Order: sequence, then structure tokens, then C-alpha cells
Amino acid sequence: MSLPAINLERLRKDLLSLFEIGYDPQTKGVTRLGFTQADNDAKEWLINRFEIEGFCARIDHAGNVRGRISDESVQQVVATGSHIDTVISGGMFDGALGVLAGLEVLRVIKENKLNLKTPLEVFAFAEEEGRFGGMMGVQALIGELTPEWILKAHDVNGVMLEDALKNSGIDPLSVLDARVDPDYFKSFIELHIEQGPVLDTLKKPIGVVTSISGVFKWIVRLIGKSNHAGTAPMNMRSDAFMGLANFANEIPRIIDEEGSDKSRLTVGKVDLKPGHAHTVPGEVEFTLVGRDVDADIMHALADSCRKVLSAIARKHKLMFEFEQMSWLDPQPMSNNIINLIQTEAQHLDLPFEVMPSGAGHDAQHMAKVTDAGMIFVPSIGGVSHAPDEWTHWQDIEKGANLLLRSLLTLAS
Amino acid sequence: MSLPAINLERLRKDLLSLFEIGYDPQTKGVTRLGFTQADNDAKEWLINRFEIEGFCARIDHAGNVRGRISDESVQQVVATGSHIDTVISGGMFDGALGVLAGLEVLRVIKENKLNLKTPLEVFAFAEEEGRFGGMMGVQALIGELTPEWILKAHDVNGVMLEDALKNSGIDPLSVLDARVDPDYFKSFIELHIEQGPVLDTLKKPIGVVTSISGVFKWIVRLIGKSNHAGTAPMNMRSDAFMGLANFANEIPRIIDEEGSDKSRLTVGKVDLKPGHAHTVPGEVEFTLVGRDVDADIMHALADSCRKVLSAIARKHKLMFEFEQMSWLDPQPMSNNIINLIQTEAQHLDLPFEVMPSGAGHDAQHMAKVTDAGMIFVPSIGGVSHAPDEWTHWQDIEKGANLLLRSLLTLAS
Repeated sequence: MSLPAINLERLRKDLLSLFEIGYDPQTKGVTRLGFTQADNDAKEWLINRFEIEGFCARIDHAGNVRGRISDESVQQVVATGSHIDTVISGGMFDGALGVLAGLEVLRVIKENKLNLKTPLEVFAFAEEEGRFGGMMGVQALIGELTPEWILKAHDVNGVMLEDALKNSGIDPLSVLDARVDPDYFKSFIELHIEQGPVLDTLKKPIGVVTSISGVFKWIVRLIGKSNHAGTAPMNMRSDAFMGLANFANEIPRIIDEEGSDKSRLTVGKVDLKPGHAHTVPGEVEFTLVGRDVDADIMHALADSCRKVLSAIARKHKLMFEFEQMSWLDPQPMSNNIINLIQTEAQHLDLPFEVMPSGAGHDAQHMAKVTDAGMIFVPSIGGVSHAPDEWTHWQDIEKGANLLLRSLLTLAS
Repeated sequence: MSLPAINLERLRKDLLSLFEIGYDPQTKGVTRLGFTQADNDAKEWLINRFEIEGFCARIDHAGNVRGRISDESVQQVVATGSHIDTVISGGMFDGALGVLAGLEVLRVIKENKLNLKTPLEVFAFAEEEGRFGGMMGVQALIGELTPEWILKAHDVNGVMLEDALKNSGIDPLSVLDARVDPDYFKSFIELHIEQGPVLDTLKKPIGVVTSISGVFKWIVRLIGKSNHAGTAPMNMRSDAFMGLANFANEIPRIIDEEGSDKSRLTVGKVDLKPGHAHTVPGEVEFTLVGRDVDADIMHALADSCRKVLSAIARKHKLMFEFEQMSWLDPQPMSNNIINLIQTEAQHLDLPFEVMPSGAGHDAQHMAKVTDAGMIFVPSIGGVSHAPDEWTHWQDIEKGANLLLRSLLTLAS
């Protein structure tokens, strides 16, 4: 007897169709920011897709799309899914893959008349990408939102979440009613593109995610003295940029001494003042983002960065100050799910890499209430959040089949 | 018999009066960009100051103000002066000191009825600070401007020099007629604030300038690859900023090996792309400005920077390109004038430092046609081009007396 398998052609058509909603011919990217018209259109399209197949789907109080084979009342589900909102000018797969692969799994269950102990539910979580901070839908589902936050949240253009919700036909405070009893979830698996270069570099089609990295973000200021770049001798300067350069050069050593191969320290944004070619920069403000999968290591990295910055500031006669904008602890995935996915990958003869996720995902919140795990497929060149985000169709097929097999095992 | 000396109180009053023209009570700085209304008002005020003393003054074809004790025709003059245009929100002394000290020297000559072999002429050179590139007036005077340049030059707001000249009552192409036969100048001395921290740090009131540093300006681009700061492992990145940081860290070594204690290498402007906290910067564009008083050393510094940048680019998998925006060779001052100023400083018992000028000055162009030199007075904290630019009045007095004595010796 051959194992049930997903139909890549159906999944491919769904991905291409959804990509049309919010597609911009100029950038060749797709823009469906959470709770915009394009995002609402995509949700309507998705519900329609479920219903065409004879499935049941609805939008919950938080704007999550939820789909099952039938609408009979159930005590517990095996859940899967991801999101269908995007960043500005995103690609075809980020989020959409996990949702539409879930829909394809439902189709396979139906056409093979598979009798499951626990029904499967597919989620498209609302506002994952961060227009209003990110992962709003899944946090509503697990009961982590507060009324205060809902009424205060706004996007970069000053649009209030409250108004965006109303325009999408959602009563803002009823978002809290999207909360589901944790026991409702037997388990959760999210299929997602890696958005990084590891699998592509290793030429492996599957990543089994062990945990989602924690992340901290600092805004650091080094303040020295602006001077004429001609009249100020090198040894009489308090050059803020040279302080930053010294620090950046220490990053590899800091990770060697305090970090792991999962550690990341990134200076992504740098503002020099006054920022003139002929003036020694008297001030620099920069972002420092640190990540690791181990909270203790994150603390060690942060401590070391602070000490190194203090020492460099003293050496360069600079004032050093920083503000911690955010700190999110790492979130391990469930060992049960990690082991299950590996076993199923071996059955399917799929080479895989056991790896952390450097980026955040809906699964990190689901992991707080149920056994949760993630399957990665490769991103060519590690590119994501851009129009040229791409994954080979054969890898999409492998990932979706692994999702199918894992969900069937959980539901049987 | 006591030596003739300047009257600090008169000079102070002139400096304070001129500071009012273009003064901004909000920033406490003064703004007289070349050929703006404030600059034109200042020139009118200056001519009026000459005339009140019974001297003769006029604006030449290039907008330079030229003043002498009488308007009798002469074959040759000893020249002094500087400029009265300013940067945005500049201080009281930059430029103005050299012009108004020249006026004060004329007053001392007149009131002491000194009979000079060669008359003294005081210049306020037009557009020194760079609204249209800088040092326009002095270059017109020595015949270095071309009609093409005059018709092409514009300021950062797109205002054409041509229009600014017309608005100031100057026929653009007649600027070329400001040219003076080099033999007209017997010699030239400019008194200026140092605009750097050396004299203030050494607690010496006088700097004797040996040469004006040459300067090159590059725009450098390092191009790698933007990546998600979470998903891209440290060893799979092509982080353009890390390339820049590595280079900046090599600057002290480059100067140690190839430079002198007069060398300067400055990274003053840095633009990261995309410039987001959570994205590995795929591209950086930065300015590199190099200076030295020796042209060979400048070339050695530039060569070394290029080699180090190439090596770093290879190491970080970056593309390296640069554009040389400008290259100006160093300009030595005349040994005659350097020696004269030192001798006069010794007579006046003034401690002095023999030093280069890191900034450019009108004197570097005058040095091409005549014996030229410069006298520096200290800038407190090295501050200039800012409202809190300041020089102690006793140092102003010392510098102006040294200028007086040096000019009298040259003219006698």
C-alpha cells in the first residue's frame, strides 16, 4: 500500500493564486500588511478555497482564519498553519506555505478517506509580520493580549489597531474572545521557509527546528566630540565612530568567549552626528541585536557587550549609554514533536538538519500551550522578506509531505 | 621708544559689531553664507568701517572687499586679510578676525603716522567657506577661475552661483576681471583662529603655520548581502558594516606605518543599507578623508587604504569600489614669512608652536603667487564652525600684535 502524499500541483496553484492578492508588478513582490484591504481580501479568498473543497472555515474574533474538514463540535484538534499577511514587497512562501500546505493536507485526508482519531485544524494567524507588533492573532488565541495593548497599538503611520480592526469588521475588544482553552490543542506543527542560508548551503531539503532564538535589541549611544577632520590630530580626538568600529571588531571574540554557534550579534543601523565627510563624528547611535537559543548565553553575551562597550568608551574618551528596547527569551520546541518529525523524515528518506530558528514564528507562542514544532524548507541564498524569496518546488513538496506524515501520525 | 601696538578694544568692538550681521538668537551662531543678503550686508558694513576711518575701500569684480589707507595708485602692496563669510551657525572669529585685525593694523599705521615703503592692503576674500565650493574670491584674484566653472557652480539648494552673483550686483563673467598681476603682491600674511585643539592643549598663544595640509576625499562602497539578522549565521554573512569596522580599526596602523604625526584619516559619514536593526547590512557607503602636509605621504596613505580595503573586502566576501571625489596637494608657506613671524614672535616674547594647518585657508592660494604665511591663535577646546567657537581676548591681542609687527617689517 502506497502512503498518502500531497499533490504538489494543487498546492502550487494555491500559492500562485494567493500571490496575486497584493502583488505589485513594479517590485514583483507582494504586500499584504495585516488588516489592510489586501490582507482582508486574502482571508476571504482563503475561506472561499476551504469552502470550494467542501471544508468549513471561519474568521475568529481576532481575525484568524480557522479551517476544518467538517464543522462538527470537537474537544481537541491537531493544529497546523502559519500566516498569510506579508511584509512590504515580500515573497510567495513566507507564511503562505504553512497555511496552504495545511489546506492540502486536509484535501489528502478527505480524498484518501482517512479516519483520524483527532481532527486536524488549519490556522492562518492574523498579523504575524508586525504591522502592529506582530503575532497578534496567535497571541489572542492563547490569551496573551490585554485590552490596554489592543487600544494602544498602532502602525508606523500612526493608524490605530483599533481602527484597522473596525475597518476589517472586527470589534476591537472582542479580540480577547478569540482565546481558546489550551486543552483544545493536542499539538501544533508549522511548516515554514527557513529565511536563512543554512539548508541551502548544506543542500538539505528539511530543517527540524529545535527552538526559536531569543532576541534582545539595544539602542546604543557613544558620545564624544565633533571636530574639524583636518585640525584635530588623531590623538586628540573623541571619535564616536572609532569607538563603534572597535566594538564591532570585538564581536567575533565576544561570541567565541561567551556565545555558541547559534549566537548572533548584529549592528544593523548606524547614525553618525553630524555625519559630514570633513568632521570627526562626535556622536553615534546604533542598534545592537543579539540572539541565541539559550537564555543564559543571551545574558552572557549582553553582559560582555556592555563591558566591552564601557572599556572602549573609556579608551576613546566617549560617553556610553544604551537602552534595552526588548528582550525575548528563547522558546524551545517540544521534544516529542522534534523526535516525531525526525522519525517521519527518516521514513520518507529525507535528509534533514536539526537547527534553531533565528527568526520568530507563530509556533513560539503555540509552544506555550501545547506540544509544538516546526519544519523548515530551504530558502535559496537565504533570501526572504523580498520579491526574490524562492524555494524549489521539489523542496516544497518534500516539506509538505513531511508535514502531512507528521500530522497524520499525531492525529491517528 | 615703545613699539606701536594694536588697540584691542577697537578690534573687539569691530568683531562684536560684525557678529551682529546674520546673528541668530536661537542658535547663538552667525550665518553669512557667501553672496547671501547677510554676506552682502557685512561687506557694506566693512566698507563703511574703512571709510569712517578715512580709508579707501571697494568691492572688486569677484566680490572681494579691498581696503587701503589711501586710493593713490601703487605698484605693489603687502597684503593681509581673510574672509567675512561664514558657515551656517558659525562663531565670531573664523575669518572675521583676519580681516578686522588688518583694519586695526591700518589704524595703527595711520595714528602712528608710520611711513611705509610698501603700502598695506587688507582683503576680505569672497566665498571662502564653500557655499559654491569655497575660496572663490582669492582664486579669482590669482586668476584660477574659468568661465565654465562660474556658469556651472551651484549651492546645495541648487541656487546657481551666476544668479547669486547677479543678486549681489556682480556680473558673473566679469568675476574673471578680478585677476591681479602676481607682482602686485610683495607678500601676504593671514591671521586666523586655529580651529583645532593643538595650541589650546599646549597652552601657547601663537601658531606659526608651515604649510596647509593636502586633502583627498573618497566615497567608498562595500557591497555584500543583506540577510535576516536572526537566520543568517555569523560565518555565512557578507556584512558590509563589519568590513567597514575592520577597516576603521586598521587606520591607526596605516598611519603608524605610512603616515606622520601630521596625518589624518577620518570616516565622517556612513550610510548602511537597508539600515534596519534586524537586517545584516548588505551595503555601506562611507567617506574617507585623508590629509598630510607631504604629498608623498598622502599617496602612501591612499595606497595603503586601498590595499587594506581590498584585503578586507576579500575576507568578508564584499565588493569594494571607491570614487576619488577630490585631491588637493599640500601647500607649503613661504620660508621667508615663516622665519619672519618666528623672529617677530621672539621679539614680542610670545611662546609659539610651529605647526601645519589641517584646514584650508585663503593663504594657500595666495602662496601660489607670493611669499605667504599664516599666524594662528588658539581655539578653546578646538571648537570652530559652531556658535561656541571662542578665543581668549588676550590671545586675539597677541595674534593681532604679531600680525602688526610682521606686516610692518615686510612693508618697511
